[in-house]
Amino acid sequence: MSRVAYVNGRYLPFAEAKVHVEDRGYQLADGVYEVMAVRGGRLRRAERHMARLDRSLAALRIPLPLSHKALQVIVAEVVRRNRIADGMVYLQITRGVAKREHAFPKSVKPSVVLTARATRPRTAEWQSGVAVITIPDIRWKRPDIKSVSLLPNVLGKQQAVEAGAYEAWMVDGDGNVTEGTSTNAWIVTKKGELVTRKADTAILHGVTRAVLRESAGKHGPKVVERPFSVAEAKAAAEAFLTSTTSAVMPVVKIDDAVIGDGTPGPVTRRLMALLERNGDG
Amino acid sequence: MSRVAYVNGRYLPFAEAKVHVEDRGYQLADGVYEVMAVRGGRLRRAERHMARLDRSLAALRIPLPLSHKALQVIVAEVVRRNRIADGMVYLQITRGVAKREHAFPKSVKPSVVLTARATRPRTAEWQSGVAVITIPDIRWKRPDIKSVSLLPNVLGKQQAVEAGAYEAWMVDGDGNVTEGTSTNAWIVTKKGELVTRKADTAILHGVTRAVLRESAGKHGPKVVERPFSVAEAKAAAEAFLTSTTSAVMPVVKIDDAVIGDGTPGPVTRRLMALLERNGDG
Repeated sequence: MSRVAYVNGRYLPFAEAKVHVEDRGYQLADGVYEVMAVRGGRLRRAERHMARLDRSLAALRIPLPLSHKALQVIVAEVVRRNRIADGMVYLQITRGVAKREHAFPKSVKPSVVLTARATRPRTAEWQSGVAVITIPDIRWKRPDIKSVSLLPNVLGKQQAVEAGAYEAWMVDGDGNVTEGTSTNAWIVTKKGELVTRKADTAILHGVTRAVLRESAGKHGPKVVERPFSVAEAKAAAEAFLTSTTSAVMPVVKIDDAVIGDGTPGPVTRRLMALLERNGDG
Repeated sequence: MSRVAYVNGRYLPFAEAKVHVEDRGYQLADGVYEVMAVRGGRLRRAERHMARLDRSLAALRIPLPLSHKALQVIVAEVVRRNRIADGMVYLQITRGVAKREHAFPKSVKPSVVLTARATRPRTAEWQSGVAVITIPDIRWKRPDIKSVSLLPNVLGKQQAVEAGAYEAWMVDGDGNVTEGTSTNAWIVTKKGELVTRKADTAILHGVTRAVLRESAGKHGPKVVERPFSVAEAKAAAEAFLTSTTSAVMPVVKIDDAVIGDGTPGPVTRRLMALLERNGDG
């Protein structure tokens, strides 16, 4: 089967899916994106992704060049043409193509690109849990905008991979964990509280984070939104991370500290099941 | 005359100069760039730009996919094909095209893109001087790497434009100016000292900055490399900014404060002339 991508109004063979070199996404990281899960051929949590997309675009003052409805028709078509049952859709919107200058061009049409790929069934990582390392958070001060300005995240994830870890948790100037390079960070305290940082301007407002927070609040342990330090995380009963791609992923090691007994804890396993059941449209 | 761009080994009509949507420059800002001046058809300060390019690539561990010599042959060819007498060459090198994952792909060939454009003779701005505003520096902690992760710079420059200013000077947590969104910042104190921030990890190591620092050290006022506050800048005798595109540009207003008598000062004018004479290969 040959892959297809959507690029500015056209469905193209993947190899021909190209954007101009003066697209501001390429030269200036002037764009935003969403990664959305597909299950059974249907987009999951579409409303939440569209709401976050709106928020990111508004922060950069990029007008959404088509309606949510039209965008979702395109998403469905990309899923269909790529015959994705279970997988991911990647959507990127940039300010568009213009002569290279930092300031916003006067008249420009945003670029819209979508790709999709199938994902394999869950690997052993979800069974055994993963390791994370901690690194300084050197990103810009607005990581809540889901922009393609991801170079620090790239470098952080690479550090994790080279340390044999799944993710790097980034630490702010106060010694508190902000989040992972592409995931949100959570701990379960020995008192049984679920702790994750408040979704302010210091972290990405993860869709899985929000869904889990609401579900856990209804059906599970109490959720407390506050910063936690690296030391507190290392001494926690359990730890895990969340993202659209990773869902709930148990963390069993932080730097050299083994978390709990080194296996996914009971609260984490319960939340994995809870999230799995939660279709959420 | 039709413009030509160089894209990964081919000279293409400008409209067809495209990169793949999975180029890591587009999806992850995982690349670096240089903007180089052309005068009389020849590249200026080639050695310095190549040295800085090497430094940026090394910081991201992107191998230079061709020799400096080969790259300069391509630059010369892009200049020739676009018939540029006086203008700019833009060079971008990214990690290459790969399935979207944050960590470095295992096997990937860097992408190389060059464009060129003619520039108009200097406008009235160099005669009258320009205004700058001051804004918080919200960038990541490695702006010394000349990466395409430029979104905060884009937003800062846009703020300047909307305030009727030429540039925004960014201010760190200590109240000191780091630099402009695409230029380095300088002041001349009432004692006649030339002050600019040291080229550490907090600012871009401007080629024009380095040339001016060396030339001024030899032929002009004493150069002191240290941070300066917004208050000190507003009370300075003179102020100016430097970049390849702007050369030495007099600053006559910072926020609401008029600098000196509101016209380009004698030291600034002397440095403009000094830099103009300095061909520097």
